[in-house]
Amino acid sequence: MTTLFNDPAEFSEDQLEGFVDVYSDRLRAVPGGVVSHRGPDPIVAVVVGGGSGHYPAFAGLVGPGFASGAVVGNIFTSPSAAQVYSVAKAAHQGRGVVLTFGNYAGDVMNFGIAATRLRREGIDTRIVLVTDDVASSATEESRRGIAGDFTVFKALGAAAARGADLDEVERIGNAANRATRSFGVAFSGCTMPGAAAPLFSVPEAHMGVGLGIHGEPGIRDEPLTSAKDLAKLLVDGILAERPASGSHRVGAIVNGLGTTKYEELFLLWKEIRPLLDDAGLTPVDVEVGELVTSLDMGGCSLTLMWLDDELEAAWRADAYAPGYRKRTGAIASLRPADVGAVDAEASAAPRATPEAAAVTPLVVAGLREIQRTLHDAAAELGRIDAVAGDGDHGRGMVKGIDAALAAVDALEDAGPGWTLRVAGRAWAAGAGGTSGVLWGAGLEAAGEALTDTRDSYGPAAILDGATAFSDAILELGGAEVGDKTLVDALSPFLTVLHEQLSMGASAGDAWREAAHGAGRAAEATAGLSPKKGRARPLAEKSIGTPDAGATSFALIVEALGSMTTTRP
Amino acid sequence: MTTLFNDPAEFSEDQLEGFVDVYSDRLRAVPGGVVSHRGPDPIVAVVVGGGSGHYPAFAGLVGPGFASGAVVGNIFTSPSAAQVYSVAKAAHQGRGVVLTFGNYAGDVMNFGIAATRLRREGIDTRIVLVTDDVASSATEESRRGIAGDFTVFKALGAAAARGADLDEVERIGNAANRATRSFGVAFSGCTMPGAAAPLFSVPEAHMGVGLGIHGEPGIRDEPLTSAKDLAKLLVDGILAERPASGSHRVGAIVNGLGTTKYEELFLLWKEIRPLLDDAGLTPVDVEVGELVTSLDMGGCSLTLMWLDDELEAAWRADAYAPGYRKRTGAIASLRPADVGAVDAEASAAPRATPEAAAVTPLVVAGLREIQRTLHDAAAELGRIDAVAGDGDHGRGMVKGIDAALAAVDALEDAGPGWTLRVAGRAWAAGAGGTSGVLWGAGLEAAGEALTDTRDSYGPAAILDGATAFSDAILELGGAEVGDKTLVDALSPFLTVLHEQLSMGASAGDAWREAAHGAGRAAEATAGLSPKKGRARPLAEKSIGTPDAGATSFALIVEALGSMTTTRP
Repeated sequence: MTTLFNDPAEFSEDQLEGFVDVYSDRLRAVPGGVVSHRGPDPIVAVVVGGGSGHYPAFAGLVGPGFASGAVVGNIFTSPSAAQVYSVAKAAHQGRGVVLTFGNYAGDVMNFGIAATRLRREGIDTRIVLVTDDVASSATEESRRGIAGDFTVFKALGAAAARGADLDEVERIGNAANRATRSFGVAFSGCTMPGAAAPLFSVPEAHMGVGLGIHGEPGIRDEPLTSAKDLAKLLVDGILAERPASGSHRVGAIVNGLGTTKYEELFLLWKEIRPLLDDAGLTPVDVEVGELVTSLDMGGCSLTLMWLDDELEAAWRADAYAPGYRKRTGAIASLRPADVGAVDAEASAAPRATPEAAAVTPLVVAGLREIQRTLHDAAAELGRIDAVAGDGDHGRGMVKGIDAALAAVDALEDAGPGWTLRVAGRAWAAGAGGTSGVLWGAGLEAAGEALTDTRDSYGPAAILDGATAFSDAILELGGAEVGDKTLVDALSPFLTVLHEQLSMGASAGDAWREAAHGAGRAAEATAGLSPKKGRARPLAEKSIGTPDAGATSFALIVEALGSMTTTRP
Repeated sequence: MTTLFNDPAEFSEDQLEGFVDVYSDRLRAVPGGVVSHRGPDPIVAVVVGGGSGHYPAFAGLVGPGFASGAVVGNIFTSPSAAQVYSVAKAAHQGRGVVLTFGNYAGDVMNFGIAATRLRREGIDTRIVLVTDDVASSATEESRRGIAGDFTVFKALGAAAARGADLDEVERIGNAANRATRSFGVAFSGCTMPGAAAPLFSVPEAHMGVGLGIHGEPGIRDEPLTSAKDLAKLLVDGILAERPASGSHRVGAIVNGLGTTKYEELFLLWKEIRPLLDDAGLTPVDVEVGELVTSLDMGGCSLTLMWLDDELEAAWRADAYAPGYRKRTGAIASLRPADVGAVDAEASAAPRATPEAAAVTPLVVAGLREIQRTLHDAAAELGRIDAVAGDGDHGRGMVKGIDAALAAVDALEDAGPGWTLRVAGRAWAAGAGGTSGVLWGAGLEAAGEALTDTRDSYGPAAILDGATAFSDAILELGGAEVGDKTLVDALSPFLTVLHEQLSMGASAGDAWREAAHGAGRAAEATAGLSPKKGRARPLAEKSIGTPDAGATSFALIVEALGSMTTTRP
């Protein structure tokens, strides 16, 4: 949808007024469009244009190194000859004018009339048509202009900026057009301001191959493909129409039409790149982004411009327009950081004492018990969590323990403290979500408290580890007893464990007693209303169901307790 | 829709790979994200981050004058502490690290854990939270971070780039956050890669006020308003929560969430600007664009940062990141063009001979006859055109003649040639569409051929004018007889007119005979299949209906002919 407007009929004028206000330090409005402020030396005026709705094309391309002026028509509508004339007259600096635009009948007529009028007044005026869209016609000269507007306009702007004369600028512009090919697909139509329906629509799970940029649908519909297959479609489509030039270097644009986002376009480039490599082409200064849009249309296109030395210099040249800025000097002096030492800490496992080393197998066995328990309980934990949350607790816990054990299995000669630290970090990284962070931090803190340098791993060590686990979770999560979280089971567990051990109970007995308390407390959370975490907006709904985090904690400590019984 | 991906689970990694390939000349991938290449002098490392799906936030903000590194989580998901640690370690240049991110529980936990780990290794690490969203909480410190990420990150990056030490960079970052307020609205939800439905939806013709940037809906739904009313909602919302600072200068961002396009955002700025003026605020270096997005979400937000001298210097400073580039020097030396003389040609009406001046009233009367004719026939012309076209022919012709007469009515002492030239230009500018351009060019050419300097305006002048009218249309439109266009009526009209006048018929008789021929020819176009213009794709459907352009031409010349009869 095009949503923001006042009177739809005034959309084009209104948006231009805002644009000019924002960039009034570098351009000015004239009847029919905008012209750039001028540098000290006069240059050939490159005047771009067409309808509006294509930002940054066309007004956003006015500035040093790019266009001298832009004619701004109504949305998707050619500007009138009077508008073209007015902008060109204002942009002219005494060295002639190039009018350049995509090959559409209305633009050809109106820019043509303006050119005649300008020439009659003695202003030498040339026309450079953009005809890059290989899908629109088998005949090169009959093709329409789409994102290739950008490469051709930029070549013209660069030539003008370096002081070339009118013949030279025109020649380079035409060479750029002959060297440029584009091919695109549409995923969804675009909607004019005030309109209730889009100008066209693409059938569900399809794409329109050979898109236009004025709400024209593709020339045929095909089923939507993966990014990988789409990359092949686009590259093959362009290579089938490659220019006769023998160059192996290409300027490249992955252009988004409006709704297709940058992340998607980068992903598509990842798939396009190796296909160009396979074709023996070296991409130069790749542009990925929204350069020639079509309001809120979904879709994308690939443009390649085959580069000779002259076009490569133009393509790489600096420019500074509202919608496109390039300055190679800004990065020329930078050097890559040496980041070889990033993983230094992770590999710095301390040497374990013999007493510590003897305990490691028990820690690993405990982690395996947790893994079994969580895999068994995952579905039920998900069900409980879904009552008032997003239902991913079981799956998240499984991902966490699986990642933890994978990391632990890769260790050699690690003590129990280091093993838990590695397990905790891997758990946090693998699980995602709040519970993953808390369990990861808890295990890591327990491992740090345990250390691998003790003379004995008896009740004191267990209490130190459990206390550190609890402290880390309380500090990070910020929850208190009664908030209906993991803490409701963790807190009584730690209290009972401490009591039992200080009364002289065996580690196993103390643990089982504490786990029993945790289980009862977890069940009791059914009566609570949640105060923390994702469940908050659905507080009422959750009453009657225990907290998933408290439940999984209780299941884990109960399973560990029975392990010490059956495998002493 | 998010459309381009391979395995949705790998979306974040895949898009990052493409991004890094495009910008490998200025940044590099490290485990967990990216780090900028380095300049010659070490600086405080500003490490930004959060989930992906917000491009250019966060990886697109890495570069000179901005962030030193970006941590890249999964879509809308906090990165893990291990990722944050890894990126910060790689970005660190020996002068300490600032970790900065929006205030979300997952990010607070994971960046917090990483900070602890970094400090333990002796890397001085500070945390600067962004809390700009006034809609998210009444308490400043509890607010979440949305587009204010940009102002705070930029202030940090500018301070680091000028060599400030860690205490100073941290202080400026916190000052920027305290000075920043944002408020936004959502028009439509966003869809995760591979998901069939958006994360939320906004009721038809409503907007979600107080949007989030992770697919959270607004805090309340309100009916969609005009851009003007929305501007007031946003400005009022922010001013109600303005910081205590007495500054009257504000950095401003109109941010688009993804689907809301640049043209709409510029239009919104046009409405925001006067409201800031009214509030006594001077906007500085306004940014209008997509800076912190949310996949393909529709919506926008306004951010203001109240500037003291220090924050203004940071806000105005140069930066060069993939997704944001600023270099004030590129435009500092430019000067506005003097464009006072643009309308020079339009006012240069030649002095008419007495013979010419005597004919002007007849030309104006003729234009009024055309106006009456077209107003009467508009509905029927629209109906004919709609059979196989877009149905706007009647309306376009009416707009053209109305604009022509308005321009002519403003003339004083013009000859018939100048009157037709002015009428033609106004027609083309006012009507739009192909028929408007053709009629405008035809009338203008007729006026030029007629001139205002003849000694006599008899049959030769009429034939010159009609021939020029026809030549202009044939040249511009490129149609031939039989293509089912205006030319099918125009061509026989001119032939008969020429024949009749060369046989010695009076101007009136010759005209009426020619108009009769045009009328018959227009009717006969019903049997043709269109070869030119908009009707082409619907060629078959049009058989049986005459061409609208040929019909309107015939109606006009017939009306002009009967005028010379009834008002000789």
